[in-house]
Amino acid sequence: MYEAALSLVGEVGYPRTTIEGIAARAGVGKQTIYRWWPSKAAVLLEAFIDLGEQAARAAGTEAGDYAIPDTGDLAADLRTVLRATVDELVDPKYEAPSRALAAAGVVDPQLGAEFVEKLLEPQLQLYVERLRAAQETGDVRAGIDPRIALELLVAPLAHRWLLRTLPLTHAYADAIVDYALGGLAAR
Amino acid sequence: MYEAALSLVGEVGYPRTTIEGIAARAGVGKQTIYRWWPSKAAVLLEAFIDLGEQAARAAGTEAGDYAIPDTGDLAADLRTVLRATVDELVDPKYEAPSRALAAAGVVDPQLGAEFVEKLLEPQLQLYVERLRAAQETGDVRAGIDPRIALELLVAPLAHRWLLRTLPLTHAYADAIVDYALGGLAAR
Repeated sequence: MYEAALSLVGEVGYPRTTIEGIAARAGVGKQTIYRWWPSKAAVLLEAFIDLGEQAARAAGTEAGDYAIPDTGDLAADLRTVLRATVDELVDPKYEAPSRALAAAGVVDPQLGAEFVEKLLEPQLQLYVERLRAAQETGDVRAGIDPRIALELLVAPLAHRWLLRTLPLTHAYADAIVDYALGGLAAR
Repeated sequence: MYEAALSLVGEVGYPRTTIEGIAARAGVGKQTIYRWWPSKAAVLLEAFIDLGEQAARAAGTEAGDYAIPDTGDLAADLRTVLRATVDELVDPKYEAPSRALAAAGVVDPQLGAEFVEKLLEPQLQLYVERLRAAQETGDVRAGIDPRIALELLVAPLAHRWLLRTLPLTHAYADAIVDYALGGLAAR
């Protein structure tokens, strides 16, 4: 079902993807889909949640046990995770459905709230935990709110991906980590 | 025409807005619109470019003469412009059409490229100029690329607005300026 939805959006585009089309490709009746999901956007959201759980299982962890590495070198750990995020965002395999889902959430507050609650915020909390650990070791300023601070790291990547302003590369991820940790102001 | 497009999207939503509906409200034939714009998204894009030019004229400047204030206090100048950006983003008057345009650009590369070239990038260049001036006065680190640095300032606001993660407030804008200039790392 999820694989059918993701591949169909990738092939025909989101506007021409229908519940009927997803059902046909998955070999089920369309009533089966309507029984569980209110819309094609809802199917996509669950498909990406499922992908995340698959990735966690493949990594030998439960989805809830996932964490940003803590090698003691905060800059290196953040470069590792932001480079991996770049790789995910530029992967052509999921580009069409993930853009479709993001765009649907921009204009639909209820879907957007579900996207944030179920998919985005759990990922952002991993940054909160890593930054809080860095505050405990004295690597991050004590007065910083980690829930705000993480947005300096993840938002620039999302911005380039969503708006396609400039290339999304590892070098860019490294620069963001350097600028965010070291600050733009001269010392 | 532009006012008709913006108000119609605000009232009936983007999916139910049609070229015919815009034409009817503006009191012109639909062929008049099709002659100049390939899609309703293209009408919206031009409407927002026109709004920007109107705002520049109201401020007594040409659109091309607009600049971020330079009082000599970089942090204060950035707080001023980011607070104004927050006010624009949360203004309910243009919320529906601006979200519709952003979402259309996320899934349509050609429209997205036009959005960036005509509307977004000229605004981002104002940050490049202000940050470059700050490098010349020694307020910003010499090694920083201003075109990347500005993304630490504008992307977090866009992220909260697009994805509706948490409230978009002046206090948030102030925190972003403080964190971006001072850096997250302890000194």
